[in-house]
Amino acid sequence: MKVSIIGATGYGGLELLRFLHNHKEVVEIGLFTSSEEGTVFSDKFPHLTNIYNQPLLKIDYDVLAKSDVVFASTPSGVSSTLFPPLVNLGPKLIDLSGDFRLKNLESYESWYKKKPAPKEVVEKSVYGLTEWNEAAIKKSELIANPGCYPTAVLLSILPLIKHQLIDPSFLVIDAKSGISGAGNKPSNTTHYSEANESFSIYKINEHQHIPEIEQAISMFTDTETTITFNTHLVPMTRGILATSYAQVTEGVTQQQLVDCLTSTYEKHPFVRVIQEASSIGTNRVKGSNYCDIYVKLDERTNRATIIGVIDNLVKGAAGQAIQNMNVQFGLPQQTGLQLVPYFI
Amino acid sequence: MKVSIIGATGYGGLELLRFLHNHKEVVEIGLFTSSEEGTVFSDKFPHLTNIYNQPLLKIDYDVLAKSDVVFASTPSGVSSTLFPPLVNLGPKLIDLSGDFRLKNLESYESWYKKKPAPKEVVEKSVYGLTEWNEAAIKKSELIANPGCYPTAVLLSILPLIKHQLIDPSFLVIDAKSGISGAGNKPSNTTHYSEANESFSIYKINEHQHIPEIEQAISMFTDTETTITFNTHLVPMTRGILATSYAQVTEGVTQQQLVDCLTSTYEKHPFVRVIQEASSIGTNRVKGSNYCDIYVKLDERTNRATIIGVIDNLVKGAAGQAIQNMNVQFGLPQQTGLQLVPYFI
Amino acid sequence: MKVSIIGATGYGGLELLRFLHNHKEVVEIGLFTSSEEGTVFSDKFPHLTNIYNQPLLKIDYDVLAKSDVVFASTPSGVSSTLFPPLVNLGPKLIDLSGDFRLKNLESYESWYKKKPAPKEVVEKSVYGLTEWNEAAIKKSELIANPGCYPTAVLLSILPLIKHQLIDPSFLVIDAKSGISGAGNKPSNTTHYSEANESFSIYKINEHQHIPEIEQAISMFTDTETTITFNTHLVPMTRGILATSYAQVTEGVTQQQLVDCLTSTYEKHPFVRVIQEASSIGTNRVKGSNYCDIYVKLDERTNRATIIGVIDNLVKGAAGQAIQNMNVQFGLPQQTGLQLVPYFI
Amino acid sequence: MKVSIIGATGYGGLELLRFLHNHKEVVEIGLFTSSEEGTVFSDKFPHLTNIYNQPLLKIDYDVLAKSDVVFASTPSGVSSTLFPPLVNLGPKLIDLSGDFRLKNLESYESWYKKKPAPKEVVEKSVYGLTEWNEAAIKKSELIANPGCYPTAVLLSILPLIKHQLIDPSFLVIDAKSGISGAGNKPSNTTHYSEANESFSIYKINEHQHIPEIEQAISMFTDTETTITFNTHLVPMTRGILATSYAQVTEGVTQQQLVDCLTSTYEKHPFVRVIQEASSIGTNRVKGSNYCDIYVKLDERTNRATIIGVIDNLVKGAAGQAIQNMNVQFGLPQQTGLQLVPYFI
Repeated sequence: MKVSIIGATGYGGLELLRFLHNHKEVVEIGLFTSSEEGTVFSDKFPHLTNIYNQPLLKIDYDVLAKSDVVFASTPSGVSSTLFPPLVNLGPKLIDLSGDFRLKNLESYESWYKKKPAPKEVVEKSVYGLTEWNEAAIKKSELIANPGCYPTAVLLSILPLIKHQLIDPSFLVIDAKSGISGAGNKPSNTTHYSEANESFSIYKINEHQHIPEIEQAISMFTDTETTITFNTHLVPMTRGILATSYAQVTEGVTQQQLVDCLTSTYEKHPFVRVIQEASSIGTNRVKGSNYCDIYVKLDERTNRATIIGVIDNLVKGAAGQAIQNMNVQFGLPQQTGLQLVPYFI
Repeated sequence: MKVSIIGATGYGGLELLRFLHNHKEVVEIGLFTSSEEGTVFSDKFPHLTNIYNQPLLKIDYDVLAKSDVVFASTPSGVSSTLFPPLVNLGPKLIDLSGDFRLKNLESYESWYKKKPAPKEVVEKSVYGLTEWNEAAIKKSELIANPGCYPTAVLLSILPLIKHQLIDPSFLVIDAKSGISGAGNKPSNTTHYSEANESFSIYKINEHQHIPEIEQAISMFTDTETTITFNTHLVPMTRGILATSYAQVTEGVTQQQLVDCLTSTYEKHPFVRVIQEASSIGTNRVKGSNYCDIYVKLDERTNRATIIGVIDNLVKGAAGQAIQNMNVQFGLPQQTGLQLVPYFI
Repeated sequence: MKVSIIGATGYGGLELLRFLHNHKEVVEIGLFTSSEEGTVFSDKFPHLTNIYNQPLLKIDYDVLAKSDVVFASTPSGVSSTLFPPLVNLGPKLIDLSGDFRLKNLESYESWYKKKPAPKEVVEKSVYGLTEWNEAAIKKSELIANPGCYPTAVLLSILPLIKHQLIDPSFLVIDAKSGISGAGNKPSNTTHYSEANESFSIYKINEHQHIPEIEQAISMFTDTETTITFNTHLVPMTRGILATSYAQVTEGVTQQQLVDCLTSTYEKHPFVRVIQEASSIGTNRVKGSNYCDIYVKLDERTNRATIIGVIDNLVKGAAGQAIQNMNVQFGLPQQTGLQLVPYFI
Repeated sequence: MKVSIIGATGYGGLELLRFLHNHKEVVEIGLFTSSEEGTVFSDKFPHLTNIYNQPLLKIDYDVLAKSDVVFASTPSGVSSTLFPPLVNLGPKLIDLSGDFRLKNLESYESWYKKKPAPKEVVEKSVYGLTEWNEAAIKKSELIANPGCYPTAVLLSILPLIKHQLIDPSFLVIDAKSGISGAGNKPSNTTHYSEANESFSIYKINEHQHIPEIEQAISMFTDTETTITFNTHLVPMTRGILATSYAQVTEGVTQQQLVDCLTSTYEKHPFVRVIQEASSIGTNRVKGSNYCDIYVKLDERTNRATIIGVIDNLVKGAAGQAIQNMNVQFGLPQQTGLQLVPYFI
């Protein structure tokens, strides 16, 4: 397979390369850029010395069109114009940004404050939450790879909503992310001395992943709901842990909650249902494509605490993108993705 | 004033010393220990070289009785037996542990898994949430200094509950703490290589601060409620940020929420109502006795996000204890506590 | 005393404010800026809400001239032009940058790559290494406050060179600093995700503190030497630890080395001679004006390892600047500086 | 290949598993323990859930003897007794501890404060610095895998000593390590709140890697020298950066220094000669088996600064051990080791 990456210089792009380097079906990787043509990639990223010494290439549709798959790992508002000309030209397209995720274009415009992608292209796109949309992904030409937060949230709560074990009408989701989620562009928020040793909240009630989560709940469980969703910044590089809270349906037991998760994912290699709360932590999935999930019924309140944990750059971005590529090409989902979590 | 500290070797004790060193009314500080008698304090804690070079003293009631105030900064289950003999002997008593906080002894036993303090002593104790209980603190002999989480939570939500601006029936509190909250005893959970770069949840639905928060809501707002409360571990040393969620009473506006907080605390030097979400972060209060609070109405859902931020070791422990001491002795609350937050 | 600060928005400026807030002789603090006139200081730095709510002022020499003391905490190349017009106008001047440190203007130009300050002003300036230059500081109008690295290095090695206990001809100094030393301007080097969890070296053999250290060795010990000096970046916010290596003069013992340090500093409140290697660490001085020093003779090689530890923003910048101000005004050196190290 | 690991519960053991999981020649891995027989490995290390769900096995020589290779990743003083009975029984033996590294048994006893391994077994052992000892490793039965610090130091300085480009008589090595080097046992030194945000020095002039480095310099360059070597603790989990200083031989140029490194390692896939100082950092090798090296001549002093950077747990332990295993079995050195550095 010939792979092209647009936006290789971002963290999502670097993670694609980290995994694709050991993907046995990938024989060639082209790195494309809109602004740094000719730069030797390992000069810019010395950790890749002797691994990716090749120069960055100018974006050229003739060249891209000969790829088997093109990943876009670009900021919001870029692939909405870059990708449409490539549709139907041959390569499978996988977009890691939010540009093709929201089917409602007004919603996109209102949450992202950007012009949406063309309607017909958005309609063609398939939401790449692998474990919940495999059949559609298999046939897709253009995948809208899920956001990092939605991945952690949806994998943990969708089974319980679908089987009506929790009440979706008052769903509070409190999510926390490592700082790499903010990307590689320096800012005050990501300045070491000010981000280090501080925990903060951001985009209160305004995160663009809110409509994505609501849309996916609707899509996969036929449930319309308005969620409360907030995001916090954790002084660490990688990892997302999302804690969700909901009233549990009268009479439902802890065992039923766990069984629901277990049976949903028993055939899915990258979702692990965790039994002990003390076994949950972002370091348990760090560097890997796993999503660890956990549920606990609080009998005092009859409410459930539901946890989803991922590495935001892997299952929340590059890893899931490759997982989707594997599905598109009929490969085992795990191909190239079997790296063991770092832990320390 | 002559001050005695039992349990000076813990982080709460160290913080007491950090502030008392510059407290202009304090002329003498005795450091008492149950197990390390004779150890020169600065040998054990070299950062205190030339500041506290004195030896640790054996606990001796005759000596303690001559103090003006005795702080206990000991693990749960210690002051419940250490403090009762000192009641009525003269010194004001301030306990930083949970031993005298819960008026319901069965509740203590069930959440703490320890034998409670004697009923009559618990009844005598006054809950030291300074801003809400000043009159009682002024007359008190024994103060139960609030827990770190309850301080951050209560200061931010009590005004809104009291004025019925939020519905307390579905109150979800998602709290996050730096690792110093776990104390100074090494363990796997606090082992650097495993705690670093990981965000985790602990004591799901089982934290002993749950009954303390519920009791205080009842005490200060006459509202009985059962809360959902969870605690997470943040890879940083100091700081607590608690995010609370509740339905807002029909018709209440953002301005009313903010005004309620502002008017509640306008005379209170250590609670700051923050106007911008981007101004919230644990580094904004680090090392100081401030509690920063913030509220935001989400009009989509008519739910409020309410934030409380403290340094867990200061306003959540030693700082508030000294603030209470100041009140007991008729001093301005700020005496000795005007250290500026570190920020970086 | 009326104090003015130019460059209050940098980390040095923030630290000046942190200490001056509790300095009993300071009654007024003016915050001056070249570019953010009118900005309410606590809007820019919310941790100072209710502490420094005043607006930033435009730089105005008439106003500055009425101050008792003016601190400049600006980047290299700024005070060289800002300060000269203030000389002889009345206020004591204390510059935290390197602009007046090097007596040799060609050396300044070559190491700093900037135009030097006027010769006559540089000649007037007094090098503010408090413990070694107190008499001159007392009479000074313009203080060149030492660099952070030179402070840690010089306080630890000067006594041993002066008393000829070590051979200065092969002096290797390997220094390490927290990231706050890089200031508050975001860059790739200080971007959290890339600075976190990485240790690196920078400015190899090219750090502008090299000529400052060599000049001070010459000035205070009459010894000319060419040092090897390198600087490393530690993934933490505050702190410098400098490890110096030198051959020990034949026959000199460990005890003589320690005694030399002890007797040099016995009257100096902010330099602590540490006895145990395990008691050394940047957290032992964090947030305080202490410099901890240590020496160890390796009998296998007859070489000494000499350690100096400071908080780069305090003894390495704002703290020492206030210490110098105290000396200039005949106050006890410790005034306003007795904050206890944080440790955790 | 059937692989057995004794001491799989340490960090070295975990890293062996992280790489061996994707080593295409390894078909079976047995995990052996002296004390936790029967524990399901993924219960103890939940990040390995669904990856290594197998129980820990009791150490049993009959079973071990059937392995192709046995790794010992145990504390000092364990493999010295565990390994001797396995010699000549069949499996290749690779010891990650220091027990077989020092040929001089008195030196071992004096630096390690433990009884040495039997003389005849130590004599049989081959020092596993892969790039410098490949021929001997190929034929070896028992490999003494190098220490983490010696690996970083030796790979960077050996070429320059061997080719007499630097003077080994005054060699100062200032090394810095992440905290994972201290292993997985909780202690005050590794307690998060005290290790975090602090940089410290430890084992001044007494680190047991000193004789190992001196022995290797002698072994590979026929040069006897007494080094100065110190070790510091960096508040991060992984990584070692060693900075070495030496006088450069009269007339030698920067280019000659670089060429010497480049030509030494041109055929060696895991040593990268770095051209720019700004490209050096522990995050550039994190999680990988690379050693990055760099040299810079300071023309002012005619001294060289020489840098070696590794991930202490990979090239400094498990990675190099697998590299040695590959050599022993005639496999390409990179087999199973081609993981890309994490960077972030």
